[in-house]
Amino acid sequence: MKDLSSLGQTERAAMAPSEARELFRAGQVLPTAGISAGYAQANLIIVPQELAFDVLLFAQRNPKSCPILGVLEAGQTSNELLEGGDIRTDVPKYMVYENGVKVAEPTDLSEYWRDDLVTFIVGCSFTFESALMESGISIAHIDQGVNVPMYKTNIRSQSAGAMSGPMVVSMRPIPASQVADAVRITSRYPAVHGAPVHIGNPEELGIKDLRAPDFGDAVQIPEGTIPVFWACGVTPQAAVMESRPALAIGHAPGHMLITDIRDSQYQVP
Amino acid sequence: MKDLSSLGQTERAAMAPSEARELFRAGQVLPTAGISAGYAQANLIIVPQELAFDVLLFAQRNPKSCPILGVLEAGQTSNELLEGGDIRTDVPKYMVYENGVKVAEPTDLSEYWRDDLVTFIVGCSFTFESALMESGISIAHIDQGVNVPMYKTNIRSQSAGAMSGPMVVSMRPIPASQVADAVRITSRYPAVHGAPVHIGNPEELGIKDLRAPDFGDAVQIPEGTIPVFWACGVTPQAAVMESRPALAIGHAPGHMLITDIRDSQYQVP
Repeated sequence: MKDLSSLGQTERAAMAPSEARELFRAGQVLPTAGISAGYAQANLIIVPQELAFDVLLFAQRNPKSCPILGVLEAGQTSNELLEGGDIRTDVPKYMVYENGVKVAEPTDLSEYWRDDLVTFIVGCSFTFESALMESGISIAHIDQGVNVPMYKTNIRSQSAGAMSGPMVVSMRPIPASQVADAVRITSRYPAVHGAPVHIGNPEELGIKDLRAPDFGDAVQIPEGTIPVFWACGVTPQAAVMESRPALAIGHAPGHMLITDIRDSQYQVP
Repeated sequence: MKDLSSLGQTERAAMAPSEARELFRAGQVLPTAGISAGYAQANLIIVPQELAFDVLLFAQRNPKSCPILGVLEAGQTSNELLEGGDIRTDVPKYMVYENGVKVAEPTDLSEYWRDDLVTFIVGCSFTFESALMESGISIAHIDQGVNVPMYKTNIRSQSAGAMSGPMVVSMRPIPASQVADAVRITSRYPAVHGAPVHIGNPEELGIKDLRAPDFGDAVQIPEGTIPVFWACGVTPQAAVMESRPALAIGHAPGHMLITDIRDSQYQVP
């Protein structure tokens, strides 16, 4: 079996999604940026059936942060997004929340799985990063080999039933001359967060220090770049932390589900 | 109080949504096409809380037929779509289904209302009709003063939990030279069914006789026109009829909720 961490960038990029999922299933753990290039990666939020309506309604009311790509109904562990896969094992790392507090970061969910759990597969901004790079816009966190920085903001999500919380954003520093291009390109991907929600001025979002993200890693901000903020699929997890349901499970930020769907499927004209 | 049925087309078109809702609240009954021009009209599907997740997931999986404009959570009877209104009274006519069978067509829901009912407000193709007319495309059912014809098709909706059924379509005969324009224009309104799902060839959709619609009225088909089919917000009601939940409530086809939201709000570039 291949060892993901020892593979070069080209080999990681060329790996089929099903092969990558198999390595994660076998227990390998790595952030997924750069793996299976061209295939959509996704956020997870898994909740018991009785909370499922609130989560789906939360997503419907917050489509920029929570674009739903698919839903596994109670008892279902796979669908066409992860053909032949198993949602309980195929993500490198999970986060388990009890009463809003993270209690574990397991690499598989066997210990926590129940047949009444409903899984929401939520679009991820990694999908538009290849489109940005193809247009000559470099992505700082990829260049620096770290996870994308994510921040809780002072923008409240629209609440739904028991679910309420802050919008979480991901940040990419973009050269000032390419910010307009970044807006144009990402707005063609509404199913994976679409256009930025904010450009420049982190203070206005309540972010005091770009070097201290709430999730992921800090990036070095190259001179001449502007911080650009996109709505982030970690938003439902922030709502879970605030709303404190008895049980909820997410992916570990940056450790995504790699789906069988091509990024280009989510592009609109 | 004004008498809607005696008003001319111009007066109906000029009426504010809140005024129209007030007349319906007072018991007046009329199909809503042509009333409060420029404001979005909407389909309704109302179900008990325990079915709400299935209905919302059904909508998420069938976005062309069931584009959600808003959701009133259990116990809620109004929101920003019908400012100061009441969903139980402000639609001219409702349809009440018990075990999938229509048992009543009341003009208000006082008798049926329960605090565990959840209301889904679903986009309606009436919204793009004004855009079509502005581009010189005449709408046969408006010209002929009847309700739009709607048909159950042999296309199955994606099912969700207990909800499954056929896609329902609305039909407008469009002059062959304007069909491409109709596609182009309506594709700019994804929140209200968007581009047609089928053009020409009703047989392929399992429609045997255009003169015998399943909902609404038959229209005379002008010579030189092609029947163009759009996904229709009556689709959830067709799923209710097939899936037979203990209770579900819809609007009477053509008798829509008139919202405070301008049609133009739902237009994308």
